Amino acid sequence: MLMRMSTLFVRTLREDPSDAEVPSHRLLVRAGYIRRAAPGIYTWLPLGLAVLRKIEGIIREEMNAIGAQEVSFPALLPREPYEATGRWTEYGDNIFRLKDRKDADYLLGPTHEEMFTLLVKDMYSSYKDLPLSLYQIQTKYRDEARPRAGLLRGREFTMKDSYSFDVSDAGLDASYQKHRAAYVRIFDRLGFDYAIVKATAGAMGGSKSEEFLAKADVGEDTYVRCTTCDYAANVEAVQVRPAAPAPYDDAPAAHVEDTPGTPTIDSLVDHLNTAFPRADRPWVAGDTLKNVLVVLKHPDGTREPLAIGLPGDREVDQKRLEGQLEPIEVEPMDETEFAKHPALVKGYIGPGVLGEEGKSGIRYLVDPRVAEGTSWVTGADEPGRHVIDLVAGRDFTADGTIEAADVRDGDACPNCTEGTLESARGIEMGHVFQLGRKYAEALDLKVLDENGKLVTVTMGSYGVGVTRAVAAIAENSLDEIGLCWPRNVAPADLHVVAAGKDDAVFAAADALVAGLAEAGLDVIYDDRAGKISPGVKFKDAELIGCPTIVTVGRGVADPDNQVIEVKDRRTGERQELALDGAVAALSAIVRG
Amino acid sequence: MLMRMSTLFVRTLREDPSDAEVPSHRLLVRAGYIRRAAPGIYTWLPLGLAVLRKIEGIIREEMNAIGAQEVSFPALLPREPYEATGRWTEYGDNIFRLKDRKDADYLLGPTHEEMFTLLVKDMYSSYKDLPLSLYQIQTKYRDEARPRAGLLRGREFTMKDSYSFDVSDAGLDASYQKHRAAYVRIFDRLGFDYAIVKATAGAMGGSKSEEFLAKADVGEDTYVRCTTCDYAANVEAVQVRPAAPAPYDDAPAAHVEDTPGTPTIDSLVDHLNTAFPRADRPWVAGDTLKNVLVVLKHPDGTREPLAIGLPGDREVDQKRLEGQLEPIEVEPMDETEFAKHPALVKGYIGPGVLGEEGKSGIRYLVDPRVAEGTSWVTGADEPGRHVIDLVAGRDFTADGTIEAADVRDGDACPNCTEGTLESARGIEMGHVFQLGRKYAEALDLKVLDENGKLVTVTMGSYGVGVTRAVAAIAENSLDEIGLCWPRNVAPADLHVVAAGKDDAVFAAADALVAGLAEAGLDVIYDDRAGKISPGVKFKDAELIGCPTIVTVGRGVADPDNQVIEVKDRRTGERQELALDGAVAALSAIVRG
Repeated sequence: MLMRMSTLFVRTLREDPSDAEVPSHRLLVRAGYIRRAAPGIYTWLPLGLAVLRKIEGIIREEMNAIGAQEVSFPALLPREPYEATGRWTEYGDNIFRLKDRKDADYLLGPTHEEMFTLLVKDMYSSYKDLPLSLYQIQTKYRDEARPRAGLLRGREFTMKDSYSFDVSDAGLDASYQKHRAAYVRIFDRLGFDYAIVKATAGAMGGSKSEEFLAKADVGEDTYVRCTTCDYAANVEAVQVRPAAPAPYDDAPAAHVEDTPGTPTIDSLVDHLNTAFPRADRPWVAGDTLKNVLVVLKHPDGTREPLAIGLPGDREVDQKRLEGQLEPIEVEPMDETEFAKHPALVKGYIGPGVLGEEGKSGIRYLVDPRVAEGTSWVTGADEPGRHVIDLVAGRDFTADGTIEAADVRDGDACPNCTEGTLESARGIEMGHVFQLGRKYAEALDLKVLDENGKLVTVTMGSYGVGVTRAVAAIAENSLDEIGLCWPRNVAPADLHVVAAGKDDAVFAAADALVAGLAEAGLDVIYDDRAGKISPGVKFKDAELIGCPTIVTVGRGVADPDNQVIEVKDRRTGERQELALDGAVAALSAIVRG
Repeated sequence: MLMRMSTLFVRTLREDPSDAEVPSHRLLVRAGYIRRAAPGIYTWLPLGLAVLRKIEGIIREEMNAIGAQEVSFPALLPREPYEATGRWTEYGDNIFRLKDRKDADYLLGPTHEEMFTLLVKDMYSSYKDLPLSLYQIQTKYRDEARPRAGLLRGREFTMKDSYSFDVSDAGLDASYQKHRAAYVRIFDRLGFDYAIVKATAGAMGGSKSEEFLAKADVGEDTYVRCTTCDYAANVEAVQVRPAAPAPYDDAPAAHVEDTPGTPTIDSLVDHLNTAFPRADRPWVAGDTLKNVLVVLKHPDGTREPLAIGLPGDREVDQKRLEGQLEPIEVEPMDETEFAKHPALVKGYIGPGVLGEEGKSGIRYLVDPRVAEGTSWVTGADEPGRHVIDLVAGRDFTADGTIEAADVRDGDACPNCTEGTLESARGIEMGHVFQLGRKYAEALDLKVLDENGKLVTVTMGSYGVGVTRAVAAIAENSLDEIGLCWPRNVAPADLHVVAAGKDDAVFAAADALVAGLAEAGLDVIYDDRAGKISPGVKFKDAELIGCPTIVTVGRGVADPDNQVIEVKDRRTGERQELALDGAVAALSAIVRG
């Protein structure tokens, strides 16, 4: 493909567009890759489309390589299948709904689980037809409340979504691993820096779930990673390593003490250090066991109180808590609801009245740090009194554990013994997860197994944000002068600048470009004559960001020693090449 | 690409789907190319997608070859640009409209004239930037009242649409001719039988306009073609060749006669033959001049009477009439309106009272056959009386001519002297037309010309129905046993059937297929073992319709003389080929 700047449909801008919030968006507009058509909705210009197609090509190759088969679903979808799974309602304002002329309800598909499930149900009926993996590269719609950051969060966007269909859990796991490996190859080939992050399955249901995040400061996703090993996880998915049970044979017996005016952790710690000083070390918040009361709102509308016990230096992280309990929602317990439980003494609640066996009857779940044998100061369920040396497993037992405490930089890594966690930001580029039987059950996708018995199929779901990848790669690679594409996705392999006014320069450049095109290379050729100065051409080349910039200029003047200049866009390194044999030398640079 | 029937996501059906109205739809569903997702909305299965991609590839190559540049617009579009051109309202129920969460109006784009116009306005400002041709291959939406015939009239479909931008009319004409030539190459390569048909520009405005119609009995478009030359036109666009003025010096003078009880053409002709018999030939309907009154409804709501004079053996064709007058609508003149014109005598209206100079003041347009010097029997504007020997140009003059008379099989060809017209049906596959300045004016697309003056750009619009092409090609090529694809668009070059149970057959077929894939051929390989009989495999191969079917069967049993059978799907011709060297021989067949 040869693109001549004299005719290419592009107009570079020196000014940042006013609505661009992130660098990739600014540069993709300024360099003429995309144009905004409406909030969160973009038009692709030739340069942008070239990048998009290269990304699609890489994805397609890797999906075909694992035996996934390409199909293509419509974007305009009938309501019924989404009604059957409850998502017509669940999506709330986040999907676009419309009616046709006969007043039938439609939506613009945000994801296609239902449609894939129904298609396989329509076509297949036996275990012999499975395993099956299908994918599409297709336009999707979400009515985002705040479309922002250009292509990073659009309302119309392209995704590769695939689905696997298996009879057994082991089969699902194999399909999942195949997709995961394909994603590693895809993201490696796309050439950007990413983390594979453990995730909760969220609203989609299911079990195993990992996200591929492009590392980026502008990313909307926060995750934590280990400073030492390769562990990474969404904050919601971090699982604290449970402490091994500690021996407590020698632990002192629990004793209730007067601690007047200590309804908060801070006031309690102050009081402990004054009234019950310890010889070896002062009391700290982490020595106390805080019990937080919340109310669970079940999908059927019923409300249930829940007590969460966690070390006094931790807070309940609402998102982590809800991540564990989905689809249940959680809210703090208000005064009215609190008053219904006379056993609860505000500021002095202890395990004594909690748990399904306790006086309050309120279910009691504790942080994994509250392990058997650990010793705590906690409320004595009387105003102004606390228990000291209360040992978990000896003096009280919770109804279970829950991952509700906030995760902090410096927390121990759940995966290795040396590292600690640090938080980072990223852009969600891919997601692999095990849906399980949720959709197959809702839509009755069953096949006959080896014994002629109908069994429900188990599914995996795998997505890559394709238009988002354009922005994420741009974000990951740009610098202060422009875009700077990895070689595999650049709109062209080479950007050749004819820098000069005399015909010899253009003749040499024309011949070189013809040779490069013939060698099968994708070339942008700045053949603009007239008033366009070499300086403007170089600025445009740097802004557009092809990996190699070739200048044909004064160096071709000496007929006995014609040279051109080759610049690596990323490193800025320059080298001279003899014009004679330049096609082969440039091909070698491009093909690495 | 190698597709193995053992794993290919396909399920052929022996029964026709109940909702399929046309053969291509039946077979595309039965052979596993598409599945219906909702009325007029389809899912593409791997075989269908393979055909679609080949068609897209051919279109893309030919568009790039004329220097058109590919872009991609969103399908979800804001209301404002369509409001500016009036199409938001004009489309009526035919577009899908929706609101986003902020209650802003959107539509699903039916065509993108507005968006292309605004994009060029946004990017370009000088005559030096033009000419420019842009195209996209993109999903479009129309809320058809009766989606029918499968992909032939869908509600979600893919189109290639392009637009040219020029400063001058001559430039537009050159861009138009380039596109037209590209379309000829595209449709030739797609390998189906088509006609290039003169068309009226219709609701899009503009001047020159031609349609590419696939010849098909199931087509919704009627057109006429010459039995002798290559003339073809939509009925709306047929222009009767005006007769040369005939000398009338020797013609008898007009004379009014009593013709009681002859308000209809039939009764008049009967009366003429009885009361005024001619020696040389009887009176026929074509000797009479019929004057039909209609009412024009202008877009601003005003109503205007119009009289149309045409030979008595012709009827007014409402579509042809409206085609001439667009955007004016036409309805018959009712009794109330008729009564407002006392000069009109029902059943006996003649040119005497018509025309802007006539007593009624009603504008009077005549069929081109009512040429100067032609002689007619027509109403004398008195009850029961007609004029005989009334000569056009001598005794009356109309306000102009109009193409409103119906077109009939056997009519003289407007283009050649020998041929006559015959009607035919087709499927609109492509449309090239000169939009002119309609959209550029509405959206203010101007550029500076050579003299630094702002001039309005003139545009051409060019479309190909891509998904529709799949069905049209299928329709054009299928036979009683299945689909039968032209080579350039077939889902695979070869369909190889392993016909037998013993391992030797499969081993030979496996080796052959591996060689074919290595040679770069697209192959469907029916490697299904077990209970699938060769008969079932052959039926599937014929249904799926690749141009060449290769059977590896008993012929490979003799190690000294291994042969395979090659069958041409279209002609049914069979030949044996030595297995040794078969890859080269089959490549030669495929590559023609």
